[in-house]
Amino acid sequence: MKVTMLDVANKAGVSKATVSRVLNGKNIVRPDVVKRVFDAIETTGYRPNILARNLSAKKSNFIGLVISNDLFDGPYFSSLMHHAASTCEATSHQLVMTDGKHSKAEERSAINFLLDMRCAGIIIYPKYLDEQELADIISGTDTPIMVINRAIPQMPDNAITTNHYQSAVLMMEYIIGQGHKEVAIIRGKVGSASAQQRYQAYLDTLKNHGLMTSEALSVQGDWTIESGFNAAQQLLERGKPFSAVLACNDDMALGAIKAFHRAGLNIPQTISIAGFDNSNMCAYLSPSLSSVEVPMDKIIQRAIYKILGDTIKADSINTAGLVKIRDSIVKMRV
Amino acid sequence: MKVTMLDVANKAGVSKATVSRVLNGKNIVRPDVVKRVFDAIETTGYRPNILARNLSAKKSNFIGLVISNDLFDGPYFSSLMHHAASTCEATSHQLVMTDGKHSKAEERSAINFLLDMRCAGIIIYPKYLDEQELADIISGTDTPIMVINRAIPQMPDNAITTNHYQSAVLMMEYIIGQGHKEVAIIRGKVGSASAQQRYQAYLDTLKNHGLMTSEALSVQGDWTIESGFNAAQQLLERGKPFSAVLACNDDMALGAIKAFHRAGLNIPQTISIAGFDNSNMCAYLSPSLSSVEVPMDKIIQRAIYKILGDTIKADSINTAGLVKIRDSIVKMRV
Repeated sequence: MKVTMLDVANKAGVSKATVSRVLNGKNIVRPDVVKRVFDAIETTGYRPNILARNLSAKKSNFIGLVISNDLFDGPYFSSLMHHAASTCEATSHQLVMTDGKHSKAEERSAINFLLDMRCAGIIIYPKYLDEQELADIISGTDTPIMVINRAIPQMPDNAITTNHYQSAVLMMEYIIGQGHKEVAIIRGKVGSASAQQRYQAYLDTLKNHGLMTSEALSVQGDWTIESGFNAAQQLLERGKPFSAVLACNDDMALGAIKAFHRAGLNIPQTISIAGFDNSNMCAYLSPSLSSVEVPMDKIIQRAIYKILGDTIKADSINTAGLVKIRDSIVKMRV
Repeated sequence: MKVTMLDVANKAGVSKATVSRVLNGKNIVRPDVVKRVFDAIETTGYRPNILARNLSAKKSNFIGLVISNDLFDGPYFSSLMHHAASTCEATSHQLVMTDGKHSKAEERSAINFLLDMRCAGIIIYPKYLDEQELADIISGTDTPIMVINRAIPQMPDNAITTNHYQSAVLMMEYIIGQGHKEVAIIRGKVGSASAQQRYQAYLDTLKNHGLMTSEALSVQGDWTIESGFNAAQQLLERGKPFSAVLACNDDMALGAIKAFHRAGLNIPQTISIAGFDNSNMCAYLSPSLSSVEVPMDKIIQRAIYKILGDTIKADSINTAGLVKIRDSIVKMRV
């Protein structure tokens, strides 16, 4: 049977209101009564409802995270969650994740839920809400909200991202610097902002070097391994030659490598390839995969420190991407 | 400025108590007043607090999931989350995940939080609480609780798992059937129940076939790719010959393959290898990796249908493991 506040009151020989005052930490209760109430709580095994407490408190120790389940599958997501949970634990907070699902209304509803929870702060990895809608949500509440992986020009202080465009430029500069002139791209999922930024960087860098861009060398993927496999097969079928491929994440690079192997091509001798995310597996693939580190661990950490008001610690965290060169890219033979 | 229930009451020209009665759906309010209240809610943009509503309601549409962040890193976790969220979405529920962290108290606290939320049901992927403690939690609440990946002998109806022992036996039988007599094992993380079951199956199957078991052919891993790499190096250094390796998950198999490649060994011609989890990457590795499917998608689905009381649908889902044979195991040359 569930122990109620009344049971505690009866045990302690006080009123329910007194128990409530003790639990709320109001200092208008005599010390000997406080002790009797706490003794009664221990004897009865009473546990105050966390939600009821949250509702009466200004803040809980929860940090909320909203993310669409579209992103749940793959190493990128598990790394993000791992770092979010670890940083929450390190700062004595509890991570609560809700699913933004597949629409603006659902993303908004997942945020509302966390607002109602009186979270200490909320991290949004947005997918459906646009910049203005996010800015409105941020300014409409006292709860600190940080948006990750998306810039909010209206509220730069509430957004932490990495420069996907600049990171992709760096990788393209490296590939071109190795003498590659015909570079193909396997693009990320349609509608993804980071996928679009990487594609733009690919086009711009080729153009800046006076190199050709061609529709035939650009294939759509959807972040999955399978889509990378299919994209590489399409590239081969189109018959337009290329000596390097920029795959917009590591999973698609893995799929592409398999397709090239199956077609009897040597990687990297015949085709060089690069990925994004610098996921755990990169160093262990054969050949080991050159990739761009997307510092999601640092982005999440910075977001949590910002929420907790530790601006100095937050600002000391650098969220710029890093190019990690491994065996999968070789110098073009002239 | 936040709109309160009083604003709605003023706008509708009724008392706060009347607004509350309308929101609680009590049918003692005149229809024209109900309409006035709903019009006022729309005009003012008032949004009732979800938590307050949950506290007064018997159940929410949330389904809670408790899992320790120890398991957050890697494809196994993201696949589990993906299937949990998808099944919740398909049944019009919202997934809320909390972190069981690193102790019994923290795991218990994550469960309490979800109980207080008035979740429609809670799924626990336990790591610290033992069978008896879980049974006590289940019997101490009216909220449906399902434990996954752990058998609860006291309450078999509240636990869904796959037979890790039997699945590992099937894979070992296949490997031995290919003529391998010296089989090494890279074990899962210390303290993991499934790791222990796989190890026992390895020992028992070798013994049943009259084959040798040796301490020198057993190495400890911790589920990470890196630990698989290190374990394979240890196996090679020990100098005891073997022709096949059972890696207790796919990530460790990936690390081991890299170590064998680096040592100049051909996989699978010189060493056959098998993993567990049948993760997305298996088909795309070179060689493609034979693995045991741990049907976490089906386990999660079954848990959710059980929580929602759809026993027929739940019982129709088979959660037995399946052996998927790919290129990484070859017949032993005699």
